[in-house]
Amino acid sequence: MTPVPSPPQAVRWAADGAGVDILDQTLLPGKEERRVLRTAEEAASAIAQLQVRGAPAIGIAAAMALAVDLANHADLPVDAFFQRMAQSALRLMTARPTAVNLSWAVRRALNATKGASSINEVIAALHGEADRILEEDRDMCRRIGQHALTLFPAGPVGVMTHCNAGALATGGIGTALAPVYLAHAAGRSVHVYAPETRPLLQGSRLTAWELERAGIDVTVLPDSAAAVVLCERKVDLVIVGADRIAANGDVANKVGTYALAVLAAHHGIPFYVAAPTSTLDLTTSNGAAIPIELRSADEVRRGFGRLTSPEAVEVFTPAFDVTPAALVSAIITEHGVVRPPYDAGLAAPVERSPERNEGAG
Amino acid sequence: MTPVPSPPQAVRWAADGAGVDILDQTLLPGKEERRVLRTAEEAASAIAQLQVRGAPAIGIAAAMALAVDLANHADLPVDAFFQRMAQSALRLMTARPTAVNLSWAVRRALNATKGASSINEVIAALHGEADRILEEDRDMCRRIGQHALTLFPAGPVGVMTHCNAGALATGGIGTALAPVYLAHAAGRSVHVYAPETRPLLQGSRLTAWELERAGIDVTVLPDSAAAVVLCERKVDLVIVGADRIAANGDVANKVGTYALAVLAAHHGIPFYVAAPTSTLDLTTSNGAAIPIELRSADEVRRGFGRLTSPEAVEVFTPAFDVTPAALVSAIITEHGVVRPPYDAGLAAPVERSPERNEGAG
Repeated sequence: MTPVPSPPQAVRWAADGAGVDILDQTLLPGKEERRVLRTAEEAASAIAQLQVRGAPAIGIAAAMALAVDLANHADLPVDAFFQRMAQSALRLMTARPTAVNLSWAVRRALNATKGASSINEVIAALHGEADRILEEDRDMCRRIGQHALTLFPAGPVGVMTHCNAGALATGGIGTALAPVYLAHAAGRSVHVYAPETRPLLQGSRLTAWELERAGIDVTVLPDSAAAVVLCERKVDLVIVGADRIAANGDVANKVGTYALAVLAAHHGIPFYVAAPTSTLDLTTSNGAAIPIELRSADEVRRGFGRLTSPEAVEVFTPAFDVTPAALVSAIITEHGVVRPPYDAGLAAPVERSPERNEGAG
Repeated sequence: MTPVPSPPQAVRWAADGAGVDILDQTLLPGKEERRVLRTAEEAASAIAQLQVRGAPAIGIAAAMALAVDLANHADLPVDAFFQRMAQSALRLMTARPTAVNLSWAVRRALNATKGASSINEVIAALHGEADRILEEDRDMCRRIGQHALTLFPAGPVGVMTHCNAGALATGGIGTALAPVYLAHAAGRSVHVYAPETRPLLQGSRLTAWELERAGIDVTVLPDSAAAVVLCERKVDLVIVGADRIAANGDVANKVGTYALAVLAAHHGIPFYVAAPTSTLDLTTSNGAAIPIELRSADEVRRGFGRLTSPEAVEVFTPAFDVTPAALVSAIITEHGVVRPPYDAGLAAPVERSPERNEGAG
């Protein structure tokens, strides 16, 4: 049986059960500091500021924050309580626009309250559902890892990723990085190339940090050097996470993903997307319909506390881009490996046995 | 007659004639501060630190520094003088390894001293040749601009570049940016997209600064967002400079250029390289033989005075990459527009009349 890796916990219940305890990712890698969020507003703001980030992790955090927020208002009159619930749910769902997991998780939590006959039952239902979302995510990460690992070639493997789709982005061992953790735990030689991911440097700050912490070989590079690494055949595959996957298989993910997909195709290197089915948005027919968050120009102009472009220059800084399904070699969900054409495969994912590591389940 | 633009002077003679006066580009855009270099060592160090950078500009600076350095040693015995000349020349030629202009300019200066019959004549010859290199570069930039402008489509034009191949990289109006200056001066609508160019941000710090100063529309973007701009058809062409062009047309230029070339080809957008013939290295048969400078890991790990990756993580940060000739739509030199196959065209460039703006010469 493969040992189970124990990476950092991006989001968990606070010790007193009345808060959402997050690792503040804006401070990494310099400081490892946790924060407890006690209201929907605090959580939405932490999500908008990327203190907690990654599509699965923000879904979990939002569901947990909703439970915590309402537990603090158990003494409100019934009307006011449900008004607060609606407001808090809306605030959390709209904290960021692109990842569909936010609204998925909040809707799921709200659905779980149906049939509750008292405020206390509603709160218990929210708490229970948030807990299930967290636990299921942990399990999904492991399953995604097992399925994705079947795509790794035998022998030492070079992997390129982008941004951070690791433990820090989920409740478990990550999505794109899950097979890396499993390969390493099984004693296989794996080397990860992590483009730094401007402007907020999730690759160099977060992916490098969590992999180094786990003893996994990692090389950081400027985003613009990824093509050189691909050209030099240092990697066998590219694997990234996703913030939203449309019904046709188009993938919204951190800006730079689309470029990597084009570059991987040019070099004949497979390009994989690993994401839980909570990231699928079958109501969005294709990538053009996915709303893309534009971030603040100052993240580029003075991202490090120093002026790195003229004060008032126009900046184009989308948080995400859309990779057309045609450039995606396969999508790995907790249900298995889906190959194109995606429209059928994603709508009705078939549970497939991974070729190895089944025992780790 | 088109008005001649007057962009910033990256390198010029000091007012007293006994120094090389550079604009310290490491301080831009925050501070506009000039520095006077008085020895070969000071100049080599300024070149290595990128206070003066860009293939043409460092060639000019090296030739000027050699003259200035030796003028300060006119009173040495003849043997010691020539020993100093050899040492200073070598120090300047090897300040950075990739751009061929450094050794081209120093060799040219040394060749000019042949026939000099006294130390004073040697110094005068070095000074005269450095001055010619500076003046010729200014002229070459304008010619490159005129030739490149023939490749601009009619109407408002969107241009993507990379790094800085503008005035700050040359003695004149730049190479890749020369047609942009000429188009703007002729009253045409031109919008430049400048990827920031990690790790040292020459795009956001320098290209954006010099274009904004000239009143030319410019948008800065993270390198990883360039693919989105290309996909959205915001640009008609990509044009970059070069640090060395091999005999077969392979181009070494700032890291990220190769990725842009692949992305441009994928989107059917022409990809041009603009460079003076001093950048051609016909003794290098192809790109694989071009030495690529690796920069310090700390430029990525703590480039802005703040830790942006784990302290000791491995970093891959080549200063340049090589774009194969097959991805280059045309190379523009001061002699005209050369189309593939490049091996014949680059070895014997034919002077071509630009289709417009001939009057600006």
